[in-house]
Amino acid sequence: MSEIKIALLGLGTVGTGVYSSLLKRKPEIEQLLGKRIRLSGILIKNPAKPRSDFQKAPLYSEFEKILGKEAPNVVIEAIGGIEPARTYITRSLEAGCHVISANKDLIARHGEELIRLAKEKGVRFVYEASVGGGIPVLRTLRELLRINKVQHVEGILNGTSNFILSHMRTTGCTFPEALELAQQKGYAEPDPTNDIEGLDAFYKAMVLSKWIYGVQPLWEEAEVKGIGNVRLEEIQLAEQLGLRLKHLVLLDDSLELKVKPVLVDSEHPLYGVEGVDNAVRIQTDLLGCLTLQGPGAGAEATASAIVEDFLSLYETGSVYQDKPAVSEVVQRKQAKEGTTYLLIGEKEHISGETISVLQLQGAVLDTVSLPDASVIALLYAGDLPVSPLPFTSIYPVRLSSASEAAEEVLL
Amino acid sequence: MSEIKIALLGLGTVGTGVYSSLLKRKPEIEQLLGKRIRLSGILIKNPAKPRSDFQKAPLYSEFEKILGKEAPNVVIEAIGGIEPARTYITRSLEAGCHVISANKDLIARHGEELIRLAKEKGVRFVYEASVGGGIPVLRTLRELLRINKVQHVEGILNGTSNFILSHMRTTGCTFPEALELAQQKGYAEPDPTNDIEGLDAFYKAMVLSKWIYGVQPLWEEAEVKGIGNVRLEEIQLAEQLGLRLKHLVLLDDSLELKVKPVLVDSEHPLYGVEGVDNAVRIQTDLLGCLTLQGPGAGAEATASAIVEDFLSLYETGSVYQDKPAVSEVVQRKQAKEGTTYLLIGEKEHISGETISVLQLQGAVLDTVSLPDASVIALLYAGDLPVSPLPFTSIYPVRLSSASEAAEEVLL
Ligand SMILES: NC(=O)c1ccc[n+]([C@@H]2O[C@H](COP(=O)([O-])OP(=O)(O)OC[C@H]3O[C@@H](n4cnc5c(N)ncnc54)[C@H](OP(=O)(O)O)[C@@H]3O)[C@@H](O)[C@H]2O)c1
Ligand SMILES: NC(=O)c1ccc[n+]([C@@H]2O[C@H](COP(=O)([O-])OP(=O)(O)OC[C@H]3O[C@@H](n4cnc5c(N)ncnc54)[C@H](OP(=O)(O)O)[C@@H]3O)[C@@H](O)[C@H]2O)c1
Repeated sequence: MSEIKIALLGLGTVGTGVYSSLLKRKPEIEQLLGKRIRLSGILIKNPAKPRSDFQKAPLYSEFEKILGKEAPNVVIEAIGGIEPARTYITRSLEAGCHVISANKDLIARHGEELIRLAKEKGVRFVYEASVGGGIPVLRTLRELLRINKVQHVEGILNGTSNFILSHMRTTGCTFPEALELAQQKGYAEPDPTNDIEGLDAFYKAMVLSKWIYGVQPLWEEAEVKGIGNVRLEEIQLAEQLGLRLKHLVLLDDSLELKVKPVLVDSEHPLYGVEGVDNAVRIQTDLLGCLTLQGPGAGAEATASAIVEDFLSLYETGSVYQDKPAVSEVVQRKQAKEGTTYLLIGEKEHISGETISVLQLQGAVLDTVSLPDASVIALLYAGDLPVSPLPFTSIYPVRLSSASEAAEEVLL
Repeated sequence: MSEIKIALLGLGTVGTGVYSSLLKRKPEIEQLLGKRIRLSGILIKNPAKPRSDFQKAPLYSEFEKILGKEAPNVVIEAIGGIEPARTYITRSLEAGCHVISANKDLIARHGEELIRLAKEKGVRFVYEASVGGGIPVLRTLRELLRINKVQHVEGILNGTSNFILSHMRTTGCTFPEALELAQQKGYAEPDPTNDIEGLDAFYKAMVLSKWIYGVQPLWEEAEVKGIGNVRLEEIQLAEQLGLRLKHLVLLDDSLELKVKPVLVDSEHPLYGVEGVDNAVRIQTDLLGCLTLQGPGAGAEATASAIVEDFLSLYETGSVYQDKPAVSEVVQRKQAKEGTTYLLIGEKEHISGETISVLQLQGAVLDTVSLPDASVIALLYAGDLPVSPLPFTSIYPVRLSSASEAAEEVLL
């Protein structure tokens, strides 16, 4: 029985998860593949860090040893960031190794060059874990939706943001309190900027766009907004209307990309996605609307995506590698239909005049306020007036009644 | 360029959808496969039925002509029912054709013999469309979750039942009114028994069980209950508690199967699955909980599953055919943990004594009633007393708080 040698770069949250999954499921993996598997080396940064239980593979702190000691067949990158991950992946591909990565920052920025290099070298570069953690979203898109054209994708792709918004709503705590808890629970990084500012979700959207349409939107044209400014009262006002605030990625086949907080109603497939879960709602021409929901992070879930990617290297060969499905970029007039918004502001600033201006352009459907707060929210359907409005927050609302779902355009 | 000949059996809802999808997407399909495709014949029952627009393939009313005129490479069965579908599929497999089917009744009952025959003949028998319509649930389980062990599956697999329950809740109409609308909209069959009595969902669960675990539960041991007895007040009482009634399939790795109405809370991934949508929540050991949601029926969505199955025949060869993933049946002591129930009855029959009996075994968490109705509902946590209770309905409740989700056992 031949042997597959695997090198693991990084032994943090994800690396440790991969290590234990490969070890724990070794017999089943070997049975599925009809080959033995062995960890030929693990790369870490700090050799002085105390680690227990990593007896089954040599630990190295120099990358040279990873490729040099015993040429691996597969390299799994779980370091994160641009450098040295980019160099290590490049060198691994050049050495003829398949590479598996969970690194959305890197793939968003340099995926194209790495994919090209892999193709040149006749090896595969796969990265299911980089988008949506354990959810098999990339492989579903490429392997199970071959003839379906993806019209748009709507996703909750940052577990930390989703946890914070869920937690504020269910417990009534403030943004800083929810963020602190997210950090305590290990969901948010010590520096949570990428999560909170929407950058992590943006990188994942860029990976998705390249994966589905073969190209990315222009980085500077995407609208990217995080949840840093969301106030508890806004969430509570929305809840009175049966709406929940979600941090969404909205990408469509005209390559329009928005990453921002959006309100969704209780019929919307992303309404019930709570806590650290991620979800992707994929709208296609044939199937209609398919939603995948699951854990967007965590050692075991992410390891699941990586180990499944590993199996796919040996089970399907490269059948899907060079054959993206049929989705293509559509040129579309940017005609926006009237949509619905929740407008939130201080009661004292929202005059009858403001409401009259709004009624000229559309309809104020409902007004809600909180008993002890000075804020008021207006549910409004129509185009927003171009003149400045005295509201502190304006959130788009996605109503998912059947008719709207069919006509939907990006907000 | 070589050619793939496709025969289509049946030209009803699904058959027509397949016909138009194959025609509409012919260029893309041919490009993906690198082969031409052609419809060699379509089987119908009633040659006198007026049909327009089926110019691209000969219509036959005798099956002999389908295999005899021009040997097809692939036969798509969209007739439904046991006979003559079983005979036609058998004869197609014997003739060396790959077969694609959407027929859950048949596959639940005779899938094993057809799978065996396909294997003997070196062809494939695939049936994604038989479970969950357009949702790629079977292929996700077998192709994307290879090393994940499926611990349990929870699904909304009958679109008609889900539509009826959703519609009663949102409009306040009665069961017969909702059923009539479902029939008008073409969701329910003229004879809706299989949908309403839970049999359609039961067949799909049987297909799923065989697919995941390689075996089916004993048919007579499964608990199968439909939605025929659900009253509007019950749905309204549940809603007061933030719960929604869903007709669920619950299958686990000890081969315990229940098909019945269950209440779920707003954090539960199936809570937001409304209308004719289907959804499957798959709990695995590594990934955790993955939920797929999408259209469970309809011409285009079902055609999507069939055409994707068709592509898979030629793109992955038979790699997954003989290699089910690692999920296995677990022997488990049937120790049930205390769960939560909604007990509904006539106010006048629920005495203080009844409540005392309940409190001995668990806790009455909440009591709700409707202003103008004589019914009352008790939310109860604990084992149900064995002595008969004066309630007209008892619904299990699935609360999806993180801790419960981890410990969950079948209700
Ligand atoms: N955490 C998740 O749930 C999750 C989910 C999906 C994707 N991801 C992605 O997975 C990747 C890893 O994330 P993580 O959470 O596992 O990170 P982490 O816990 O910070 O672990 C990083 C690992 O990489 C090693 N490392 C860092 N710099 C290195 C260098 N210059 N040379 C060699 N080794 C180096 C570290 O070594 P030491 O142990 O010596 O410090 C550590 O073992 C990232 O791309 C992340 O975006 C993470
Ligand atoms: N409808 C859905 O959304 C859906 C979704 C998933 C799976 N399915 C499954 O797909 C299958 C087909 O469903 P459907 O809704 O398309 O059914 P349908 O609309 O009733 O169509 C059945 C077709 O089969 C033909 N047929 C019936 N008996 C026949 C016989 N003895 N010989 C030859 N042809 C015969 C009929 O011919 P005539 O046209 O001459 O009457 C008709 O064209 C069923 O197994 C169903 O469970 C349906």
